[in-house]
Amino acid sequence: MPKSLIDADRLWNDLMALAAITDPDKPYTRRSFSPLFLKGREWLKARFEETGLTVRLDEAANLIGRLDGAERDAPTIMLGSHSDTVPSGGRFDGPAGVLAALEVVRAMKAAGYTPRHAIEIVDFLAEEPSEYGISCVGSRGMAGVLDDKMLAYTNAAGEKLSDAINRVGGDVAHLDRAWRSDIAGYLELHIEQGVVLQNNKIDLGLVTAIVGITRIEVVFEGAADHAGTTLMEYRKDASLAAAQLMLFVNERANALAARKQGRFVATTGILNIEPNASNVVPGRARLVFDIRAEDHAMIGGFLDALDAQSQAIAERDHVRRTQYNVLSSTKPTICDEHLLDLLKRGAEALGLSTMPLASGAGHDAAFVARIAPSAMLFIPCRDGKSHAPEEWTDKEQVASGAATLFEAVRLLDGQNR
Amino acid sequence: MPKSLIDADRLWNDLMALAAITDPDKPYTRRSFSPLFLKGREWLKARFEETGLTVRLDEAANLIGRLDGAERDAPTIMLGSHSDTVPSGGRFDGPAGVLAALEVVRAMKAAGYTPRHAIEIVDFLAEEPSEYGISCVGSRGMAGVLDDKMLAYTNAAGEKLSDAINRVGGDVAHLDRAWRSDIAGYLELHIEQGVVLQNNKIDLGLVTAIVGITRIEVVFEGAADHAGTTLMEYRKDASLAAAQLMLFVNERANALAARKQGRFVATTGILNIEPNASNVVPGRARLVFDIRAEDHAMIGGFLDALDAQSQAIAERDHVRRTQYNVLSSTKPTICDEHLLDLLKRGAEALGLSTMPLASGAGHDAAFVARIAPSAMLFIPCRDGKSHAPEEWTDKEQVASGAATLFEAVRLLDGQNR
Repeated sequence: MPKSLIDADRLWNDLMALAAITDPDKPYTRRSFSPLFLKGREWLKARFEETGLTVRLDEAANLIGRLDGAERDAPTIMLGSHSDTVPSGGRFDGPAGVLAALEVVRAMKAAGYTPRHAIEIVDFLAEEPSEYGISCVGSRGMAGVLDDKMLAYTNAAGEKLSDAINRVGGDVAHLDRAWRSDIAGYLELHIEQGVVLQNNKIDLGLVTAIVGITRIEVVFEGAADHAGTTLMEYRKDASLAAAQLMLFVNERANALAARKQGRFVATTGILNIEPNASNVVPGRARLVFDIRAEDHAMIGGFLDALDAQSQAIAERDHVRRTQYNVLSSTKPTICDEHLLDLLKRGAEALGLSTMPLASGAGHDAAFVARIAPSAMLFIPCRDGKSHAPEEWTDKEQVASGAATLFEAVRLLDGQNR
Repeated sequence: MPKSLIDADRLWNDLMALAAITDPDKPYTRRSFSPLFLKGREWLKARFEETGLTVRLDEAANLIGRLDGAERDAPTIMLGSHSDTVPSGGRFDGPAGVLAALEVVRAMKAAGYTPRHAIEIVDFLAEEPSEYGISCVGSRGMAGVLDDKMLAYTNAAGEKLSDAINRVGGDVAHLDRAWRSDIAGYLELHIEQGVVLQNNKIDLGLVTAIVGITRIEVVFEGAADHAGTTLMEYRKDASLAAAQLMLFVNERANALAARKQGRFVATTGILNIEPNASNVVPGRARLVFDIRAEDHAMIGGFLDALDAQSQAIAERDHVRRTQYNVLSSTKPTICDEHLLDLLKRGAEALGLSTMPLASGAGHDAAFVARIAPSAMLFIPCRDGKSHAPEEWTDKEQVASGAATLFEAVRLLDGQNR
């Protein structure tokens, strides 16, 4: 940990204190919209207020702590992440970004530094996949892309997302007011959720892009015949077509990743065969592929190959490809080069090593990027584990990230005159 | 249909009458141990009795109709199959063998032919997989291999198999009395449940063997990592190991089948990947392989290759093969050559074409073969469909089978002096 105004212990204690607000049977769980989530926000609000921030909830129920700047007309510097977790998640995915931002403001105050720009810390609502079938609820709201269709989604109990947002303090009737045009830049610190920094022994990742994600469903149908009476030559086994396509997807993804033109990954996440009985040749196989890239054109090329190959396999194996559907598709988000440069300069000033890195996961920054220059800073996490209780980053690592954030905010604050 | 004493219409009408005793919502369903099954047996008992047979239930609750022979000390000629069905099954799998046997006795009576040997027609109890987790209950009982462990199996309602057997008229306390040592030969007519006869335009299959079945469970474990943040090079994807092994099993089975050294088939019937979520690299994959052969040595060689290949794949893919278990294993049953010869001579006398053929499915004959010379005769079934409402064989085909059975019984009866 380089010399800095950041108090590593204070930041770490905050992380542990927020983590302690959890479902005791499933640490660490603070699901969005739940009583525990609101209890966590109460705690957060108290921390914001004792730091001298003005606290409010915007119409999308994002919790915002604001430090006014010396120059009234200067645009806002925004920092943040989220305090909600997945079920049985970790202590850092989300909270590290919010509490590092809080530590940045505390360090400024301790240094007697008065920023020219207002600084806001945002705890975005429901970044993780929520019970309403959608993630990044608050940042979508702020970016003006939380539409009526999404607002009508319901949870298992039948509550609409719009009602849930209002229940936790939002105002869906005036959601347009959550939209912002006054942001000079948005910076989000987050654990990497991968092993690239750890394996390369690098302190910080400068997130060049947040990948675009495309999900494709493919179904093969053959004939569910008797496993004993149906000779090999007469079979129409849908599972074998699925196996070939899985291997093709993996092989092609490896080849594209090896080109080193930015992050490319493809996964067969879901595979169901039917009837899935030991004495029946599988008559149906459903696959869902998850394909992610920094470069949207690479996804396009990959899909062309997937389409052709799945048809070719079906023809060769005498089965039918009865479904080929794009379930969802988002474009990559390119992080702001200028903000990345400030983060890099901040790290260099502190003697910390950096490397450019893509984010393979989605983040609030992908939505904020629609309305303001945005960038992310990754800190290492042990063995890439995330969304699990063993998720871990060292005290020094999160403090180094916060110190770099502090430097970048100072640099940004000194510009935009 | 060649000229014979068999009455094709009478046999067909019996088949349709027994099929009409079905769960009306799920034709054709007559599950073993159910009220409908007992209703079917009532109907069958009435047909046996009007043909002049003495009817009894043995201790394993097999329904047996007996025609005494002229020579009191001559061993019994046994014919039969089963009247129970799978859920939503067909009209021929089982009943065709029982009712063809009945037609053989009727034809003898019509011809004024008095056999030297007693002839018994057996409706074996619960040939299909029962709710007690076991198949061929009655023939196991007759063969003396229905052990205490099996008798203690329970259905979903908690009823023990032993109690169920007693409930439908058996006497488990004296199960040893069901064991028979007086059988000259057992002949079973059955639909092929495959397309070999149809595709080769052959009238009848002389079943040389009933395959041995071995089931193997293999589990691969890797790491269930994030599908976005885990680079291709860092993955431990258990599903890819599974896909490779599935293709290996299929390729090797095709090669062994192509040797034409009897039936060889291998199937990946069950495949489950975990967590089976679109955004997670599969960390675990469980496969169940079903391997069937006439030649038990071929299964041994295949398993050696499966063992070695699954280990090699795990090593290459950086996953672990955490399970490799033999779930079950039965040896092939070789049908009696002399009985097959009688069936062949019977068919030739009628001008019917035959071919040797293995049974890929299990049958009661596999158990009766443990206590007496046994053979099976296959009749064609349309498109190989079985265990389904569309299961079909033509009236002429089943009558041709019955006529051949009649000839073989006459030949057998004329021997064994």
